[in-house]
Amino acid sequence: MLSVRSATSALLLRTGTQIATVRAVPRVRSSPIRPCGSPPIRALSLSGCLCKKNKRSAWLEMTGGQNMDGSIEEVLAPLRLAVKEQGDLVRNLKAENAPEVDVNKAVAELKARKRILEAKELALQPKDDIVDRTKMEDTLKRRFFYDQAFAIYGGVSGLYDFGPVGCALKNNILQVWRQHFIQEEQILEIDCTMLTPEPVLKTSGHVDKFADYMVKDVKNGECFRADHLLKAHLQKLMSDKKCTAEKKTEMEGVITQMDNYTQQELADLFVQYNVKSPSTGNDLTPPISFNLMFQTSIGPGGNMQGYLRPETAQGIFLNFKRLLEFNQGKLPFAAAQIGNSFRNEISPRSGLIRVREFTMAEIEHFVDPNEKVHSKFSNVADLEIMLYSSKAQTSGQSAQIMRLGDAVEQGIINNSVLGYFIGRIYLYLIKVGVAKDKLRFRQHMDNEMAHYACDCWDAETKTSYGWIEIVGCADRSCYDLLCHARATKVPLVAEKPLKEPISFNFEANKGAIGKAYKKDAKLAMEYLAICDECYITEQEKLLNENGEFTIETEGKTFKLTKDMVNVKRFQKTLHVEEVVPNVIEPSFGIGRIMYSIFEHTFRIREGDERPTLPL
Amino acid sequence: MLSVRSATSALLLRTGTQIATVRAVPRVRSSPIRPCGSPPIRALSLSGCLCKKNKRSAWLEMTGGQNMDGSIEEVLAPLRLAVKEQGDLVRNLKAENAPEVDVNKAVAELKARKRILEAKELALQPKDDIVDRTKMEDTLKRRFFYDQAFAIYGGVSGLYDFGPVGCALKNNILQVWRQHFIQEEQILEIDCTMLTPEPVLKTSGHVDKFADYMVKDVKNGECFRADHLLKAHLQKLMSDKKCTAEKKTEMEGVITQMDNYTQQELADLFVQYNVKSPSTGNDLTPPISFNLMFQTSIGPGGNMQGYLRPETAQGIFLNFKRLLEFNQGKLPFAAAQIGNSFRNEISPRSGLIRVREFTMAEIEHFVDPNEKVHSKFSNVADLEIMLYSSKAQTSGQSAQIMRLGDAVEQGIINNSVLGYFIGRIYLYLIKVGVAKDKLRFRQHMDNEMAHYACDCWDAETKTSYGWIEIVGCADRSCYDLLCHARATKVPLVAEKPLKEPISFNFEANKGAIGKAYKKDAKLAMEYLAICDECYITEQEKLLNENGEFTIETEGKTFKLTKDMVNVKRFQKTLHVEEVVPNVIEPSFGIGRIMYSIFEHTFRIREGDERPTLPL
Repeated sequence: MLSVRSATSALLLRTGTQIATVRAVPRVRSSPIRPCGSPPIRALSLSGCLCKKNKRSAWLEMTGGQNMDGSIEEVLAPLRLAVKEQGDLVRNLKAENAPEVDVNKAVAELKARKRILEAKELALQPKDDIVDRTKMEDTLKRRFFYDQAFAIYGGVSGLYDFGPVGCALKNNILQVWRQHFIQEEQILEIDCTMLTPEPVLKTSGHVDKFADYMVKDVKNGECFRADHLLKAHLQKLMSDKKCTAEKKTEMEGVITQMDNYTQQELADLFVQYNVKSPSTGNDLTPPISFNLMFQTSIGPGGNMQGYLRPETAQGIFLNFKRLLEFNQGKLPFAAAQIGNSFRNEISPRSGLIRVREFTMAEIEHFVDPNEKVHSKFSNVADLEIMLYSSKAQTSGQSAQIMRLGDAVEQGIINNSVLGYFIGRIYLYLIKVGVAKDKLRFRQHMDNEMAHYACDCWDAETKTSYGWIEIVGCADRSCYDLLCHARATKVPLVAEKPLKEPISFNFEANKGAIGKAYKKDAKLAMEYLAICDECYITEQEKLLNENGEFTIETEGKTFKLTKDMVNVKRFQKTLHVEEVVPNVIEPSFGIGRIMYSIFEHTFRIREGDERPTLPL
Repeated sequence: MLSVRSATSALLLRTGTQIATVRAVPRVRSSPIRPCGSPPIRALSLSGCLCKKNKRSAWLEMTGGQNMDGSIEEVLAPLRLAVKEQGDLVRNLKAENAPEVDVNKAVAELKARKRILEAKELALQPKDDIVDRTKMEDTLKRRFFYDQAFAIYGGVSGLYDFGPVGCALKNNILQVWRQHFIQEEQILEIDCTMLTPEPVLKTSGHVDKFADYMVKDVKNGECFRADHLLKAHLQKLMSDKKCTAEKKTEMEGVITQMDNYTQQELADLFVQYNVKSPSTGNDLTPPISFNLMFQTSIGPGGNMQGYLRPETAQGIFLNFKRLLEFNQGKLPFAAAQIGNSFRNEISPRSGLIRVREFTMAEIEHFVDPNEKVHSKFSNVADLEIMLYSSKAQTSGQSAQIMRLGDAVEQGIINNSVLGYFIGRIYLYLIKVGVAKDKLRFRQHMDNEMAHYACDCWDAETKTSYGWIEIVGCADRSCYDLLCHARATKVPLVAEKPLKEPISFNFEANKGAIGKAYKKDAKLAMEYLAICDECYITEQEKLLNENGEFTIETEGKTFKLTKDMVNVKRFQKTLHVEEVVPNVIEPSFGIGRIMYSIFEHTFRIREGDERPTLPL
């Protein structure tokens, strides 16, 4: 069983970022749990590695960094250096066990530098590579791929209906998913309820920690997400010509640290910068924590609090015992679920990217922690995939195309199970229509990963919103099963037959000994049967060196040769060990995959303003 | 546009029954709207038509009533007669416009007699035809077809998870549904959100009327469905040996009238029979109305009340305009949706039959009310299906196998669109594994149908719970579109090009007239061009009788023969009429279909207690 460094705090350490396009992944485990009051440690991921003037050179750059456009790299060089210097500083501070406050400060600065580099990279990318989002969305809505739900009642933000074409596309995407994963990998698909009683989500940490800070207009009650509003307010102040350079620097510092503020610190900043409601100019309440789950009451009594699930994964963990039994008690095995999840966003924006109800497809691959090796990894080892490792990110480097096998061998990807799923996810996304040159896998940095996770990679696509996370793939160790087992006192473990160390004894050739010693043979046989291993080892050495050894028993001497006796090695299965499986979790946001496909396939005919979607 | 007899009251008139197996249909339109305080008028449907000793004779009976087991029919004959007599009485009262109270009383008695007949029929059926439910459910759970959700947390009643085999079966059932309906009928599939803002469900009537009465234990707050509890209490009293015959008759009367009581009457009965909590013996609160929708709050402000949808249909109605546009403005067309709906049952029982979260598949077929004819009806007209018409039910007769074409021709089924869907539903259910001899279509009786619906048939399967509704198929007229149009002021109509009545004029043969009258021909032509239809009719008659007619113009006479002139009939499209389409709604409860398949395919090997499911 893998140890969990700190089960109680482990869950608190995943956090969203302040960039909508990253945080808004329809429930990918790496982002939903945003701690209130605990220091958020997740970095942004808006960086781009495609900074070339045309696709050809972008491709060349991706395939190894050759033929880069010199002038662009010239602009980026100092920014890359700044990230690298800060990355080195963070590493040194950690190595020296520097005070946490110093490390956090340095990490925040590292993130800020990364963000500036990434923004510059995106700004320098060729303009013709960016889709005209307004035109695209207009086309999609006109042809009823999707549209706002309840439109004739005024609509509800964050809720969308898929029309006939969108629905057909979604069905196809899910059908391919089932073929590619469930069928090819022989995964156990299950179908759990969305209604979830409170104790389950209390255990998972969602009741306490799945929240964002918000402020309210004191008069009309309009709500705003605190970090979004503060950032927009500061940007407005900074754009004022009268704003001094000194003030600007100060405010830039606040934006940089946005993820790190406690509830009280945020409250103070709202006072300090005199933030009012942007719609009415009214005063605002201090920031309060708002849980992002939809609450309801199950049954008529009003005493069974429930929520709409924020992810499908919990249903799989709760059914672990039944699934293990279904798999005849053996590890590894995987279970999966396709279904809707819900997130009560404070102010949903960004169309299909940030919604309140969304379809997910999640796999939980349960594996013996001591055998984290995938037997089929060789099938994907030769794939060349754009990887943006943690190290590259903290060194100011670009994402690089790498052979998957090399990435696992070099330890960039923690183990071959994770590596296998990264390969399979890649193949799936290409199959359903994501553009190969707009897809990368970004590794979470140390400071954005939960304690219990040992490695985590997000599949990200490049869109007009920047790089957005569409699939998460995390090694979550044994955290979830352990939490539920503790809460319910039901052991969620697999039994693993334990083998005794290899042992050995004499194997006598009854015929040969009998032939040599006739009726005394029995004595020699009895003697050989009860030797201890130390003695056997010594005699084996003699047997190998001299071809014989001698024993004495009941006053008689026997010379035993190689044809009469040899040493047999064997192993016995004697005990059973309980093992809490580790979990590798690929988690797909179907709406975001669809959106990526829209952007990657939308074209406007040359010299023709009529847009077309080749679907 | 069809008139709606009473739009405000129409919705209130569908109600559930007191039998779990009927009411619990996972949202089939015909049952969910249970009015509080309004007289429920839906009959029970536990009747069975299979009262034979073996399948062979059951089949013969179904195929026309021959070869019936005489002794059983002897037992049933007086019961059938009793139903028929009461049915005649109800018809007479209605014909005489008798006071409503008298009609209601007679209808209640009719229902009671029907129920007794049905119970007897079921009791007389061969025992080997009934599945051993305990064994079957044990097998299904052991093999993880499905099991209670959140079991390691103690479970939540009415919530089930489907395991690998159940989930695969469900996927297959849905996949066949898509092929059979969406693809073969070219239906527009859409995918709407489950979260629904309150105004939508206020309009549809669910906020006010989708409720059951419940009573609460005054001390521990435990809740009971009022009608279920009262019935169980009375049955217990009646089973007491000391209970007088007089008392028994009285209580039987109460059970018979159960669906008809108002909130106050129910309250009085609870006092009169001194009903206490069956678990604790504590006092109970008076019956209160409990809305069956799960309530939640959308967005952070707490001011947008929302619910989890109780049916998928509303999403289709709200998207009507977009769908019509998608179909290029033309009727008829159909839209469909597959997805989960929710119903917060007071005390869910009966396993998969009555659950709080369930998957539905609904079709809304929009059709011009003046053209309720299905072009493909002939494809299904020759199907022989067991139909249990309203008339048969009120006459004490059995269900009868009928040719679908005959049922439509004879007006038993209202129109060929409804008939077509009944045929298609039948074919679908047989295809996925429902037993042909345990499937019937039962027509709603006048007094269980909403005012706005002109015909409604339920597909029912025979199970160990009796006959249960698994698909509803209703002609809902224009009710839903009209409600939403009124509430939103958005016209939900289709435009229908109007044709002028057939009109006619002279068609002159310019060449022939020119040849005959040279330069004067022009005069004749001008004259012919401006004749009124009355004059044309007269001259046409002459032309047909004499082969010629004569005209005079500008002092000149022209004799016109058949080769010079004829009368041309034509039609012009001049205006556009707005039409509110009617809706035919087949509505499938997927969980109930699955459950029926389980019962219809479960076998225990002869001489072997090990059960098998041939799936």
